[in-house]
Amino acid sequence: MNETMVCAVGNVATNLTYRELASGPSVRFRLAVTSRYWDREKSAWTDGHTNFFTVWANRQLAVNAAASLNLGDPVVVQGRLKVREEARDGGQKWASADLDAVAIGHDMARGTSAFLRTPKPEAVQRRPEPAWETPSVNADGDAPVQQQAQTVAVT
Amino acid sequence: MNETMVCAVGNVATNLTYRELASGPSVRFRLAVTSRYWDREKSAWTDGHTNFFTVWANRQLAVNAAASLNLGDPVVVQGRLKVREEARDGGQKWASADLDAVAIGHDMARGTSAFLRTPKPEAVQRRPEPAWETPSVNADGDAPVQQQAQTVAVT
Amino acid sequence: MNETMVCAVGNVATNLTYRELASGPSVRFRLAVTSRYWDREKSAWTDGHTNFFTVWANRQLAVNAAASLNLGDPVVVQGRLKVREEARDGGQKWASADLDAVAIGHDMARGTSAFLRTPKPEAVQRRPEPAWETPSVNADGDAPVQQQAQTVAVT
Amino acid sequence: MNETMVCAVGNVATNLTYRELASGPSVRFRLAVTSRYWDREKSAWTDGHTNFFTVWANRQLAVNAAASLNLGDPVVVQGRLKVREEARDGGQKWASADLDAVAIGHDMARGTSAFLRTPKPEAVQRRPEPAWETPSVNADGDAPVQQQAQTVAVT
Repeated sequence: MNETMVCAVGNVATNLTYRELASGPSVRFRLAVTSRYWDREKSAWTDGHTNFFTVWANRQLAVNAAASLNLGDPVVVQGRLKVREEARDGGQKWASADLDAVAIGHDMARGTSAFLRTPKPEAVQRRPEPAWETPSVNADGDAPVQQQAQTVAVT
Repeated sequence: MNETMVCAVGNVATNLTYRELASGPSVRFRLAVTSRYWDREKSAWTDGHTNFFTVWANRQLAVNAAASLNLGDPVVVQGRLKVREEARDGGQKWASADLDAVAIGHDMARGTSAFLRTPKPEAVQRRPEPAWETPSVNADGDAPVQQQAQTVAVT
Repeated sequence: MNETMVCAVGNVATNLTYRELASGPSVRFRLAVTSRYWDREKSAWTDGHTNFFTVWANRQLAVNAAASLNLGDPVVVQGRLKVREEARDGGQKWASADLDAVAIGHDMARGTSAFLRTPKPEAVQRRPEPAWETPSVNADGDAPVQQQAQTVAVT
Repeated sequence: MNETMVCAVGNVATNLTYRELASGPSVRFRLAVTSRYWDREKSAWTDGHTNFFTVWANRQLAVNAAASLNLGDPVVVQGRLKVREEARDGGQKWASADLDAVAIGHDMARGTSAFLRTPKPEAVQRRPEPAWETPSVNADGDAPVQQQAQTVAVT
């Protein structure tokens, strides 16, 4: 309740940092969001201010984002905004704008997206012989055929 | 100004209807957005009300959405909300909730996405010998290698 | 979770309907939200489409809205969007766009607002002699003492 | 286009700073937005993280906000989010989260609001004998008259 939700359309501005925490997989990256405005004098759309967010994703969203996102990709991110202020060493206050992501998607205004649904946990359990442990995409050799195709497409 | 922006996370509920209009490509589909709430009595997340929107996309977003989206796909959509009221034949008023999409993406909370950036018009013009007419993804044989990989991944 | 939140800036388009339900006070009114866009040809801001919402408020928000809002007032409303579809008598489907309001405020871009905080329930209980039953403002001549104080606060 | 709009519900956390700039009146204040979540273990709503924003308002919105807002007031603010990063003296980077306000209103979930519409500039010009110079709200004694004028203007 009273959470400040943000829907940001921008570009992945750093490589992703992936970590396995006690609470599960976690990923973070910087997102650059440049506003555009109609410049009446130039009669043209012009770049305005660029906001930078640190996007955080957890669990399945972290795993899938790590398998899908590359530096520069155009994305739409919905998340809870967290403005964090900390006093650093010298006592200087410092703030950052974090987005605790709920949903992340490649922006189809800029390209096409081939989607591969993550099997639900139950579905996995029901499978007689699961060929992989987590629906990982970082897998090396034994990734299912579809994932290989996808990896190719990503490059 | 004063536009009502909506960021909706849901599922594609119909096949896409694609049309070439005088103003360019246009696509529409129904989007189902089911809220989830914490049921204190059951101590479990429970489905709430489902909103249905008619999502409209134009130009490049229409072309790419048509090439990327399938019935049932989980998506995040940012768009301008338009509540339309019309008097139908009998004079009965009727309303629908439309989203004029700005960005559409496959929701990585539910799966992985392999992205293929649409070449910018200038880039296309600079190419010595464009192998396709529109930056189409529905191309058949002469699509670049990446698109073939992607097509495979889609299936 | 997955609720579609909307923040709408518009005008109260009907009188308020106030009801005491078993679940507590409830109020509803129609909200008109007209988008504005920059018309490049006319070089002027121009009215675009108008969205109509039915805004619902409950409990204390209902009581205070009923005491504060008048037809035509400019407001900002944050709420959960509910698109409702019903089959009416003849079987014809009908939809409406409801906002289940979380917060409602008079828009200070259009005027000034004199605020009178509702005492918290505990505070009320501590009061020796409450001079009114509901913090009503629909009263005619005999407005409670607090409202006079509020009018003063406007200056 | 691509602006990151935020709708924040919180409390005025500082006194307002009002300035007359070459571009017109400007006001700023700090806004505290505390999220609330349902703590399953305690079975109670609990305070979460608090976001602090610097809210900026201009022109008429600045004038009216300065006349209406007090420290501690509960408000709903819609605005464009600007995350600003600057290198301070020592070269240390520093960020702040600004909201360039489009609409500000007292939150009726917490109290009642008596609204006084600002006369439109044209309306003022048309009046034979304007009783005030700016659509001021800081006026002292003759306030009731203004309200009558407003009622006229509204109709």
